[in-house]
Amino acid sequence: MAISRTHHISQQFDKELEDIRSRVLAMGGLVEEHLAQVLEAMTRPNLELAEYVAASDFKVNNMEVEIDAECTAILLRRQPAASDLRLVLAISKVITDLERVGDETKKVARVVMNMVSTGSPRSYYTGVLSMGHHVRRMLRAALDAFARMDSRAALAVAHEDQEVDKEMEAVMRQLITYMMEDPRSIRGVLDAVLAVRAFERIGDHADNICENAIFMVEGKDVRHVALEEIEQELNRSRE
Amino acid sequence: MAISRTHHISQQFDKELEDIRSRVLAMGGLVEEHLAQVLEAMTRPNLELAEYVAASDFKVNNMEVEIDAECTAILLRRQPAASDLRLVLAISKVITDLERVGDETKKVARVVMNMVSTGSPRSYYTGVLSMGHHVRRMLRAALDAFARMDSRAALAVAHEDQEVDKEMEAVMRQLITYMMEDPRSIRGVLDAVLAVRAFERIGDHADNICENAIFMVEGKDVRHVALEEIEQELNRSRE
Repeated sequence: MAISRTHHISQQFDKELEDIRSRVLAMGGLVEEHLAQVLEAMTRPNLELAEYVAASDFKVNNMEVEIDAECTAILLRRQPAASDLRLVLAISKVITDLERVGDETKKVARVVMNMVSTGSPRSYYTGVLSMGHHVRRMLRAALDAFARMDSRAALAVAHEDQEVDKEMEAVMRQLITYMMEDPRSIRGVLDAVLAVRAFERIGDHADNICENAIFMVEGKDVRHVALEEIEQELNRSRE
Repeated sequence: MAISRTHHISQQFDKELEDIRSRVLAMGGLVEEHLAQVLEAMTRPNLELAEYVAASDFKVNNMEVEIDAECTAILLRRQPAASDLRLVLAISKVITDLERVGDETKKVARVVMNMVSTGSPRSYYTGVLSMGHHVRRMLRAALDAFARMDSRAALAVAHEDQEVDKEMEAVMRQLITYMMEDPRSIRGVLDAVLAVRAFERIGDHADNICENAIFMVEGKDVRHVALEEIEQELNRSRE
């Protein structure tokens, strides 16, 4: 269930809030694009594309610093009340998560670069890739929920994270089998393990983005609260 | 070089800021204690102590939620100007990092629980333990720098993180050798790899805490800025 934003007497303030929101979404778009590119580079595999992603992460970092400075400036200039304050604080946390998704994506890009240079068999990466596509869909859904201020959709993404964790365990079991069957594969497979861990983290960050969307819309801090409880709470507040 | 805090006309406001600062330090103290306990549990090894740490992480989570709610309340009630605003924003970010240090410590506690139940040789953990003690000292130094509002000391910790990264590479090479020499060791050694990654993360979070200390004291966002540049900048601002 999405809510719409109230309007301020100051149109200028509305414009400023709209502006940082759209900058966060642009940052999210770039992070998503890098993740999609790194998955493509892992599939083919494609060294140049992986290098391009690794070299482009600085753009994400710059966006974080700029948006965070703008958040601080708005807090100083506008001293916003409850719901606007929550929006600014949520944005300030979401961009930290997005920046870290960028870091993890860069780690995966380096794994792909290694994979190409050492000629690792693509079979190591079958499960890893499927997990990567899963967290990519999760990240997109998290950003959509944040953009539409939709706490229901945000909660659905949080459920998805549990699926990713299960998938990760299966992929890890497969990778351990490869290593045990052929000890010469250990170094190569450990790279795939690194990619698995990076995707796991990206899933966690998507989850954090959703918690911030819920905080922003509902004014409730749902970190460390069981999913079932949050669901009941959201149902109650809509009765 | 430490700076002292200015006093407000409202003594009540001073008291509130002092209160959240001391709560952050208490939270930091608890996180540090858990990390020390998990290292002790890994050394002996001690199953009960590891279980205790894993079961105690919820206290850290609760502290994060409470302090964050207090930060939001202060922003609403006091609408603080520049340096106080920076203090509150820095605290709100530092507690996120502390909570994640707690998560990583819990992961290490689970590794120790596995280590005991599968009877993994303690030799796998020699390098891991030394790395763990290193990041523990880093975390303590980061919290000290934050408590004393000392941007110089914070910068020194950031240098330390590069040392931890080097140490990690050496430990990883050792662990890979164990796996290659005896494929039956793979599962056990992968647990040690998990602990290495968790300690690496804790080092990164200590680094983030320092960046927030510098932001709070100097009003400069030094994320993604090279250490040498930050050093020059701090020197210039003190001439």
